[in-house]
Order: sequence, then structure tokens, then C-alpha cells
Amino acid sequence: MAAPPHKRSLALTKVYGLLEPGPVVLLTTSHKGTANVMTMSWHTMMEFEPPLVGCVVSENDFSFAALNATRQCALNIPTVEMAAQVVGCGNESGAQSDKFADFGLTQASASLIAAPLIRECYANLECRVVDTRLKNRYNFFVLEVVKAWIDPSKKAPRTLHHRGYGVFMVAGETIKLASRMR
Amino acid sequence: MAAPPHKRSLALTKVYGLLEPGPVVLLTTSHKGTANVMTMSWHTMMEFEPPLVGCVVSENDFSFAALNATRQCALNIPTVEMAAQVVGCGNESGAQSDKFADFGLTQASASLIAAPLIRECYANLECRVVDTRLKNRYNFFVLEVVKAWIDPSKKAPRTLHHRGYGVFMVAGETIKLASRMR
Repeated sequence: MAAPPHKRSLALTKVYGLLEPGPVVLLTTSHKGTANVMTMSWHTMMEFEPPLVGCVVSENDFSFAALNATRQCALNIPTVEMAAQVVGCGNESGAQSDKFADFGLTQASASLIAAPLIRECYANLECRVVDTRLKNRYNFFVLEVVKAWIDPSKKAPRTLHHRGYGVFMVAGETIKLASRMR
Repeated sequence: MAAPPHKRSLALTKVYGLLEPGPVVLLTTSHKGTANVMTMSWHTMMEFEPPLVGCVVSENDFSFAALNATRQCALNIPTVEMAAQVVGCGNESGAQSDKFADFGLTQASASLIAAPLIRECYANLECRVVDTRLKNRYNFFVLEVVKAWIDPSKKAPRTLHHRGYGVFMVAGETIKLASRMR
């Protein structure tokens, strides 16, 4: 299947570098003909390869039922230009509204899952749920990233990092140190 | 017990705002008379109150045995001034070296746990392990933050966010949006 517009495939071994810095992501689902998007910051890498991501999707979120039933979602990473849309998607519920329409977000087809990708985001990760042992206690899902897309023109993406109550830190300068850490 | 130098107690309800943006943290442990510190980026908030944090501590890390046996650790949050120490602690193993001595990190007493706090970090979270169901499969621990300390003079902490292979994003500007998200 064709890549989403402006994107190229990203090696799965490089996915951790996108999520490890803690950006706010937009989680997309599709269930019973309805696509939805929610704003999420509670995620962590859990394995390099295949890339595993743990995340909390509250059962109070409209997306919970879709993620739980379909076991698929996409994690779409926005930059500061999308700040108003990020907050808007966090303030509204998909139970009452079509957030793609309300915030001018464009759906692009994923290659391996049914949930849509968000074209305006600089990176898109297609995910399947692989472990739900902590779901009942913590609303915690373990996802495997099965396909990754990135906009190669965004060299220093100004991602958003939520500090609570609508305060966001915007990614600043980058420094390189002599690390042996992967 | 006295607060660590220059720190005040932080309400546990505010802890999520420290970890949600995804900063690199220094995880400290104490086991059989040996204190150790490791650099970690794989963590996520899992609950607001009491604050729960999920994190991956690999069984290849020297800290794993201490965390597993004592079920206690502190998460200490450094800023960019400590970048060399953060990378140094990531490159060395506590099995071979005393990283506190090697990198000039000062131990301060915690109030509720035996693991030391790092004085030079702007925030310190005292934690207990509360769930290890995903430990065997993913080296994933669920921590409860039982006490939090912060340096009130650091209004806009320039935290470090790892992009992989020693590349760090430094926290940039802060923006405020009309969010109803907590």
C-alpha cells in the first residue's frame, strides 16, 4: 500500500527515539465505522525491537472501547504548529463529536491496521495490542508498533510535552553527548 | 525528617506534571550497603493519585537486583547542567564503579525509603514497587510515589529528553493553552 503523503517508512528499530522523549501523541482508532482521536501523554517504550509501547487509555475515554475491541490504534506525533488541535482533541469527547472534522485533521490510510493515520502529524506509528494483563487494574495496554512512517523533512520536530493543566513544554535545542546508551 | 537541602515537599497530586513530559531520570537504589544510580527514560505515569509510575529496569542493569529485592527506589530529575553526569551514569555500570563518587553526585537522605536522593537534581520522588506482574516478561515495575521533593527556585527546569544514541532534546519554551485536561 502507498505511503501516507509526504512520509517514508521508518525502520522499526528507530521508533524508540520518537517516543522516548515523551511527546504528547494523538491516538487514533476506528470502530464500527467511527474514527476517533484522543490526546495522550501517558506512554513509555518497553522494548526496542519489535518496538513495544505501554500506554494508559482510561475507560472514561471514548477511545477505550474501540482500542479494547479492535486491538488496534495509531500513535500520531504532532508538533507545536498543531497545539490548538492537540488541546481541542483533549477537551472534547468522541462520544459527542467528530474531532477530525472539528479540528481539520486529515485521515490517511494505514498499511496494516484499520485505524486512520493523521496526515498533519510528522510521524505515525501503526500499533496492535499485544498484552492486556494490566488493563483491568490500570487501563494499561502494551502495544507493538508494526509499521512506522515519518516525514523526512522534519529534522528537529518541535514536539509538545504536557506539564499539566494545559501547560506544554515545546521541544528546544538538541545536544549530542558521547553516549554508549542506545 | 528534614527535607533535602534546598527542597520543599511537593503535593503528590502534582507529581504527574514532573514525569509526564518525559524527562530522563536518575534512578537510585540502595542494597546490601551499596548505593547505585542509573539513567532511565522508559517511564510513564499510570495514575494521578496516589501517583503511580510504570518503568522498565532491565535485568541487564545492575540496579535491577536492588530494585527487585528492596522494592524501593528514588526517581531524581536532572536538568541540562547535569548532562555529563546523566550520560556518564548511563555509560558505566554500578557493578564496576561507584557512580556517585565518579560523577560528583551528592547523596541526601530520603524520608520514607532507604535509597538515597540526589541533591543536585531539582526534584526527587521516593517510590515503592507496588506491582511486578509484568516484570518477568518486560522488566516492567509499577511504582507508587510516596513522597516528593522539589527545588522551588527552579521555575522552568531545562530537563533532558533522550532521542537515542546520546542525542538529547533540552526542554524549550513553555506555552499555556485553554485545556480542560488535567
